[in-house]
Amino acid sequence: MLSKAQITLISSLQHKKYRKQHGFFTVEGIKSVNEFINSAYIIEAIYATEDTWTKLNKIPQNIKSYILSEKEFQKISNLRTPQGAIALVQLPQPTALSVAHLRNQHTLVLDSVQDPGNMGTIIRTADWFGIKTIICSPDTVDIFNPKVVQATMGSLSRMHIHYTDLEILLRTCTVSSFGAVLEGTSIYKTSFDTESLIILGNEGNGIRPSILELLDYRITIPAFGQAESLNVAVAATVFCSEIARQTKS
Amino acid sequence: MLSKAQITLISSLQHKKYRKQHGFFTVEGIKSVNEFINSAYIIEAIYATEDTWTKLNKIPQNIKSYILSEKEFQKISNLRTPQGAIALVQLPQPTALSVAHLRNQHTLVLDSVQDPGNMGTIIRTADWFGIKTIICSPDTVDIFNPKVVQATMGSLSRMHIHYTDLEILLRTCTVSSFGAVLEGTSIYKTSFDTESLIILGNEGNGIRPSILELLDYRITIPAFGQAESLNVAVAATVFCSEIARQTKS
Repeated sequence: MLSKAQITLISSLQHKKYRKQHGFFTVEGIKSVNEFINSAYIIEAIYATEDTWTKLNKIPQNIKSYILSEKEFQKISNLRTPQGAIALVQLPQPTALSVAHLRNQHTLVLDSVQDPGNMGTIIRTADWFGIKTIICSPDTVDIFNPKVVQATMGSLSRMHIHYTDLEILLRTCTVSSFGAVLEGTSIYKTSFDTESLIILGNEGNGIRPSILELLDYRITIPAFGQAESLNVAVAATVFCSEIARQTKS
Repeated sequence: MLSKAQITLISSLQHKKYRKQHGFFTVEGIKSVNEFINSAYIIEAIYATEDTWTKLNKIPQNIKSYILSEKEFQKISNLRTPQGAIALVQLPQPTALSVAHLRNQHTLVLDSVQDPGNMGTIIRTADWFGIKTIICSPDTVDIFNPKVVQATMGSLSRMHIHYTDLEILLRTCTVSSFGAVLEGTSIYKTSFDTESLIILGNEGNGIRPSILELLDYRITIPAFGQAESLNVAVAATVFCSEIARQTKS
């Protein structure tokens, strides 16, 4: 049986304010919960229905676990179609970003991406293509938003993600920066070499002017049809794919 | 003033059953409505708030138009944040698909894609990369679903989309078919030439076995990290981008 206090706590974690206050976020879905069990994140508790319990990885003894009825589970689920397993996970301590660590790898840099679905898809796609680090401006959507967590399909458990001032980053980091803009050099004529910062902007406004000024290269995904813009997760995909093609395939 | 009957009609068009029954679908948002005004679609009526009215393209005289208060507009909006303009558009008559028309172009073929957001993003992305035709299995999500229409950002007004039996298509069409699968030839080692059918499968299950059998080539987007799968709109993006790079850039 879940106490009313537990239900209130878990439900409150949809909101960033309460995630910060309580120091927890939630992960929902069998696949995602399993990936977090196997990750460096510290899990406080796992809630699952009887049906899904057997599909979860071995749960370490120090993690509290609760078997719930479908009806009880629905009270804490964030989804229209609840997926039977929720982990209550400790928010990690923010770690300092060392720009030296950005050498010899390709890193995505997000300037004020707002949509949780886009953010989650970017994390999942970056993980697929072997990108290990994503840097976000402070006003980018919170990665522990349940919709972001959901859309990453477990990839969040593996990605290094930092929130930091992008102007300071670009002024101090010597890795070449490539910004996705509507008018620039074709991505298909760009050589990405062994390291890069790939800057992607806000859904409506693109990269903000103060960041645009600091870019080493302005790169465009050429349009061959009539659409006026690309979704930011789609733009991120084209960069990840082209970098993988050039440097790993 | 909107009549109760009008509000009921427009709201009912969220559901496929009523779109079919009434022969209409809705398009919401200034940009999307403007693109439909300039398209071959037949618009029955336009509803807009006073604020957005001036941002719309010139509306032909035969189209009924209604200026609404914000409050009235909210009653017919499908969005949490209503965008001030809705077009009531006639469902087009399905046109016969001639397989001969698929020669000398690249065409996306969707096998049971279910998520409206994915579908909309695929249409928008295909439009960006100059793809003109998308073919869907009959059980693929309806392109006139308001969430699909919304996510296409107007690109729906330009794309030729057919629903048809994919087995018959693949048996009768001589254009080479390339299916996106988890184990196949790397897309980066594949030559797409001047024409192709690119087959993408369902979000959970991929391409169904009876279609897999009929493929000419099984193609994989290589994974360089640990994610187990890619979102279908992301996979579509990688194909569109790689085809554009090889054949148009």
